[in-house]
Amino acid sequence: MSVRGQFITFEGTEGVGKSTQIANAAATLKELGVEYRLTREPGGTPMAESIRELLLAQRDESVSEVTELLLMFAARAQHLHTLILPALEAGQWVLCDRFTDATFAYQGGGRGVPNERIEMLESLVQGELRPDHVVLLDAPVETGMTRARCRGELDRFEQEAVPFFQRIRDTYLARAAADPERYSIVDAAAPLEEVSAQVSQLMCKFRSDLL
Amino acid sequence: MSVRGQFITFEGTEGVGKSTQIANAAATLKELGVEYRLTREPGGTPMAESIRELLLAQRDESVSEVTELLLMFAARAQHLHTLILPALEAGQWVLCDRFTDATFAYQGGGRGVPNERIEMLESLVQGELRPDHVVLLDAPVETGMTRARCRGELDRFEQEAVPFFQRIRDTYLARAAADPERYSIVDAAAPLEEVSAQVSQLMCKFRSDLL
Repeated sequence: MSVRGQFITFEGTEGVGKSTQIANAAATLKELGVEYRLTREPGGTPMAESIRELLLAQRDESVSEVTELLLMFAARAQHLHTLILPALEAGQWVLCDRFTDATFAYQGGGRGVPNERIEMLESLVQGELRPDHVVLLDAPVETGMTRARCRGELDRFEQEAVPFFQRIRDTYLARAAADPERYSIVDAAAPLEEVSAQVSQLMCKFRSDLL
Repeated sequence: MSVRGQFITFEGTEGVGKSTQIANAAATLKELGVEYRLTREPGGTPMAESIRELLLAQRDESVSEVTELLLMFAARAQHLHTLILPALEAGQWVLCDRFTDATFAYQGGGRGVPNERIEMLESLVQGELRPDHVVLLDAPVETGMTRARCRGELDRFEQEAVPFFQRIRDTYLARAAADPERYSIVDAAAPLEEVSAQVSQLMCKFRSDLL
């Protein structure tokens, strides 16, 4: 009988190095002999990826705030039932690029959607399920924005102004402060080797805590 | 200053003649000199139509019940904010092929999604807004199924079995019985001229009730 896998999410504003650190975390788990799945939100299954495309597309029609919120959670429900839960139940760890914390940060903190609305949908879609660990890659907004711009990645969300991303960062930090057992804040403005070392150490710790 | 338009929805199981009767209702309103918009759910705007395509597509990936429900309401929120509310506020009447009653009937009655979940999303998306009038085209399930089959229209929903559509019909009838002021039941198994005459009379009544 396999033990349920750990569900680990990676969060942070644009350009903090999430993709790099998820790959680094995966390499560490591989060395540790832990089976894992890499995935991302919104997306992770063909249908959820289609919803992601709808969300990120540039379009003439302005998207209502509630529409955006419901699409996010529709993709999440599909991702959860099709990929995340089956993997966890098979004993695999799941490393996920963003999850519901991103909704609280971007739609809640960023756009002002009331927290109660997000919590209501979180309960509807996830029941009691929450990530076992949230790795928050934190850096000053200007640092991340500069990196994201250099990559030429400016989708609908990234075109927003700096104060918007500041509110997002503040929301992430407040959520981490409120639940320090489950959240690990990593200084993503530090040199890459230091960030990578810290993330690898976290994976080792999460692993050894189970033994 | 324009008076707010009336929001009229047309409901019923497959093959009861909704499209025909919406066209008939529109012709009647035109004769009465009432400005109107025709629209349909899920859909009604380019983005909502894209969501509709996601919902109705045949796919290998099974769609979770919650995903389906959230996509329905995401399309509805977009439809409401982009088309329905602006039209009503401009004084136009809106004739809509299906609305939230269909969610209660198909997802609730048909698939067993708890009513409280649907009511929660109805409040999130619509606030206090409900259709001013619901025209329920009612016919025995077998009658409608035969007509739908003859049209060659068998999408993912229509492939379901007869007991599923029976539960849908029962849900529609129960909702109409609980609020007879707002719901009008039309016998859609009657000869076409009779059904059309009854629907036209309803439009005339809705109009004269306002004068």
